[in-house]
Amino acid sequence: MPVLYNSMISGNCYKVRLLAAHLGVELELREVSVTDRSDRPELLGALNPSLRVPTLVLDDGRPLGESGAILWYLGEGTRFVPADRYARAQVLQWMFFEQYEHEPAIAVARFLIAYSGLEREQYEKRLPRLHADGERALAAMERHLEGRAFFVGDEMTLADIALYAYTHCAEEGGFDLAPFPAVRSWLARVAAEPGHIPIP
Amino acid sequence: MPVLYNSMISGNCYKVRLLAAHLGVELELREVSVTDRSDRPELLGALNPSLRVPTLVLDDGRPLGESGAILWYLGEGTRFVPADRYARAQVLQWMFFEQYEHEPAIAVARFLIAYSGLEREQYEKRLPRLHADGERALAAMERHLEGRAFFVGDEMTLADIALYAYTHCAEEGGFDLAPFPAVRSWLARVAAEPGHIPIP
Repeated sequence: MPVLYNSMISGNCYKVRLLAAHLGVELELREVSVTDRSDRPELLGALNPSLRVPTLVLDDGRPLGESGAILWYLGEGTRFVPADRYARAQVLQWMFFEQYEHEPAIAVARFLIAYSGLEREQYEKRLPRLHADGERALAAMERHLEGRAFFVGDEMTLADIALYAYTHCAEEGGFDLAPFPAVRSWLARVAAEPGHIPIP
Repeated sequence: MPVLYNSMISGNCYKVRLLAAHLGVELELREVSVTDRSDRPELLGALNPSLRVPTLVLDDGRPLGESGAILWYLGEGTRFVPADRYARAQVLQWMFFEQYEHEPAIAVARFLIAYSGLEREQYEKRLPRLHADGERALAAMERHLEGRAFFVGDEMTLADIALYAYTHCAEEGGFDLAPFPAVRSWLARVAAEPGHIPIP
């Protein structure tokens, strides 16, 4: 059984668990702390150049880091990766958008406020910038989702899984989703898919 | 002919031009300013959710954003994307690593110092963090490249193209590559490939 170095509060890890649940792939979870990172070099040094979770280790011991790469590895050849070349590239476009424009704002604000254990005064100077960047990403998603059921084509793909993870818990990061009705409808649509599992 | 909304100083755009040169794909370049961004909504609003360059527009008008997605679109089915599923995922691992761990530090420091037009006092407080983050990414590359010719397998892939772009001009961002001999050998190897073109 593949091993997933995992954090139950990390949206990046949740993406992998959510896809695995949809695909019926069983994973052995090994929980890694996201606040005390002192054991990361020992734990992940030989497995992942960025020493981050998620890190997947296949049955034969081959490791893979980066949530987007793990999603692609598990998702290729399934209904979550389109057969059409342009549609596949669009899925990757939204996955790279998520890691560059969305996650560094929304996931970081959520972590600081809800999980870092820091006092508000230790991070509050960072929030205005994180909130402005995150709202710009949400507005781009809203424009794209108006009149669409999912990000690429008519079915759920890896793009939806990647973007769902931190969007659906953005309120923990101080974001208000009320101004984004198309995003809220899409979140409900993803959560209603058979096989869906929540983040704890 | 596909149109590339391009900046000649952007490493993200250079990745696309470099791959296109290797593949013999001709692109019509339309230069976009990376300092005055006021025309971005008009120019790219219907083409790219993040309003960034590179943005590729195919012959039939279909648009694609995110350098990683554009590389994948052009590279699939060529020698730059491996046939093996695990190797493909490794290529994506390094491409996501580049966009999350490497580019936000190394490209941003380079832009601030060499291209932003700002006075040093306007950004110098940001440099220590950018340099620490960038050096951590370079150290991870160095560890991986020791004893390897390229990032994945024995041939150049999209992973090398993605990481070459901002690594080879990291000195413009105040980074010293002397402590990273495996990285320097790899840079020379990429630049020696037949069909290579420089960033201007």
